[in-house]
Amino acid sequence: MRRYVVLAPHRFERDAKTAHGVIRYASDRVVAVVDPEHAGKCVRDVAAHLDSDAPIVSTVAEALQFDPTALLIGTAPKGGALPPDWRAEVLTAIDAGLEIVSGLHDMLGRDDEFRAAALLAGTTIWDVREPPDVPIFSGSAYDVAAPIVLTVGNDCAVGKMTAALEIVRAARRAGKSAQFVPTGQTGVMIAGWGIAVDRVIADFAAGAAEQLVVEAARRGGDPIVVEGQGAMNHPAYAAVSAALLFGSAPDALILVCDPTRTHIEEYDARCMSYAQTIDVHERLLAYVKPAPTVAIALNTRSLSVDRAREEIERARRETGLPADDVVRFGADDLYAAIAPALVKRTAPV
Amino acid sequence: MRRYVVLAPHRFERDAKTAHGVIRYASDRVVAVVDPEHAGKCVRDVAAHLDSDAPIVSTVAEALQFDPTALLIGTAPKGGALPPDWRAEVLTAIDAGLEIVSGLHDMLGRDDEFRAAALLAGTTIWDVREPPDVPIFSGSAYDVAAPIVLTVGNDCAVGKMTAALEIVRAARRAGKSAQFVPTGQTGVMIAGWGIAVDRVIADFAAGAAEQLVVEAARRGGDPIVVEGQGAMNHPAYAAVSAALLFGSAPDALILVCDPTRTHIEEYDARCMSYAQTIDVHERLLAYVKPAPTVAIALNTRSLSVDRAREEIERARRETGLPADDVVRFGADDLYAAIAPALVKRTAPV
Repeated sequence: MRRYVVLAPHRFERDAKTAHGVIRYASDRVVAVVDPEHAGKCVRDVAAHLDSDAPIVSTVAEALQFDPTALLIGTAPKGGALPPDWRAEVLTAIDAGLEIVSGLHDMLGRDDEFRAAALLAGTTIWDVREPPDVPIFSGSAYDVAAPIVLTVGNDCAVGKMTAALEIVRAARRAGKSAQFVPTGQTGVMIAGWGIAVDRVIADFAAGAAEQLVVEAARRGGDPIVVEGQGAMNHPAYAAVSAALLFGSAPDALILVCDPTRTHIEEYDARCMSYAQTIDVHERLLAYVKPAPTVAIALNTRSLSVDRAREEIERARRETGLPADDVVRFGADDLYAAIAPALVKRTAPV
Repeated sequence: MRRYVVLAPHRFERDAKTAHGVIRYASDRVVAVVDPEHAGKCVRDVAAHLDSDAPIVSTVAEALQFDPTALLIGTAPKGGALPPDWRAEVLTAIDAGLEIVSGLHDMLGRDDEFRAAALLAGTTIWDVREPPDVPIFSGSAYDVAAPIVLTVGNDCAVGKMTAALEIVRAARRAGKSAQFVPTGQTGVMIAGWGIAVDRVIADFAAGAAEQLVVEAARRGGDPIVVEGQGAMNHPAYAAVSAALLFGSAPDALILVCDPTRTHIEEYDARCMSYAQTIDVHERLLAYVKPAPTVAIALNTRSLSVDRAREEIERARRETGLPADDVVRFGADDLYAAIAPALVKRTAPV
């Protein structure tokens, strides 16, 4: 079990999806957060949805008093480079013997200065996004006996990982041996295994998704719940969504949306409606193995409780599917509603 | 100008898409082919559609009499590894001072034995598929002033590259400064520039497509015709198709199909119909920048002339679009039919 310091200066409140995910779902513990903007507060003061009283401090040096064993790079900026002014803080952590855990595209373990410092300090750098060599897609996930569920969405950062984790927890509470399949850096940090599929060479990305599903089956997963990525109409990241759509061989889809999101974040593109998103995914899968959308998991965090209930009701009405916010209102009801639909399907060929 | 020996033992006739493309379209010249199965014949005897009398021989050693300057690995097997029994032939070529040109996923320039031999022989290894570092997708191709055309299809190896090359030639004959945008290893070998997008890390694949379109604009392309890859419902390679669909920012699509293809080659998945393929692509693009399908380019190589004309007529009737086989019957008519539709479109947002 790691004891993490999270490095997220000036980003912990608004732009630290990785850190929030680890604080909420990982078995590793966060003992402090570095963000001068909120120094003196605790995690819960800044992110009310996180049940943690870990202190927020200004520097890594200050955080050392809480006996951390590892430094977590708490954010994944666009392009995945380490912000230059974070370098000194990473070096302080290495010099103090902390393991460095990073989900950046920039591989810190290939940085000469960091590598040398880690060797001298006798510690290691875990680049979570560094993919293994994977074989090309072979269709082996289509032979998995347990039903496979994939979370899909109409943008990045709407809660596909969170919905998958909550559904897995609900399935386990219902007595199932559900397995979460991590496909992104935060998911990998939470589960302790997996592959950041966005970092795999495009031709091998479906093969990576397939390997993950096969591994989840080997671990006894039933159902197997795959963390989705991006959106099929995401200008920058649709490639990763497409790789997961076919590589993971889903029997059922769960649609994850933020009902207030009208445009793909940071890009000049509209989000698809619920009906359009469902239609595009089901239409593409129909040629390989048909998979119905069985539920909608809404992320209503930015809405009042009343508005959230209205949006959930609208999603139900518009699609005829069970819908809920599995974080806000719990996942048990939604899981109970979809459990009968989580059955093995066969390819149409 | 290179003088190529093509290495394709037991594959030149049926499985040497790369070699056939280079023989037909590259300015570099093929002076001999190595394939013991057809030794003694010439290229045209084995592949009637290729206008070349280059001799076919049994070994690289025999081919040296034709004064080659480079060895082309003439095929791209699934998974992209060098067949083990080809190793000795590659070494013979290196020892004779030939440049090695390879589109395999296996990077021959990283192979210790090949690298050492090339250093000793004073020659080089060009791994065409080795991608450069590219920035993340930024949308810059959406600012290109010239109209952008993307060839899309319902499977791999149906002729998307060939159709793009023929349309570019027809546009040039019509007085336009058309540019072909190479996105796969054969296209790169033919054009002498480009990126094999399937080899780019998934998160950066759309960014690679965008860089290529921007480069084609810098070269004065008008129209810019992008070589498509795979299919949106291809279980193994949809990721690459999705990256090109958004990264290349098309204003128009040309649908390329083999009318006899009912299933995705080597995979348990049905091909989409013309109408379905058109619908899926246009639907996804509608959220970013709408682009109509303006023509259908059929690959009728396996059909009689009469059957080919029937299939072309059926494609026209079913879709209402101009259709033709641009290799068999020439691309001038199809280009003339679509030229008025090659106009700049703006995003819907």
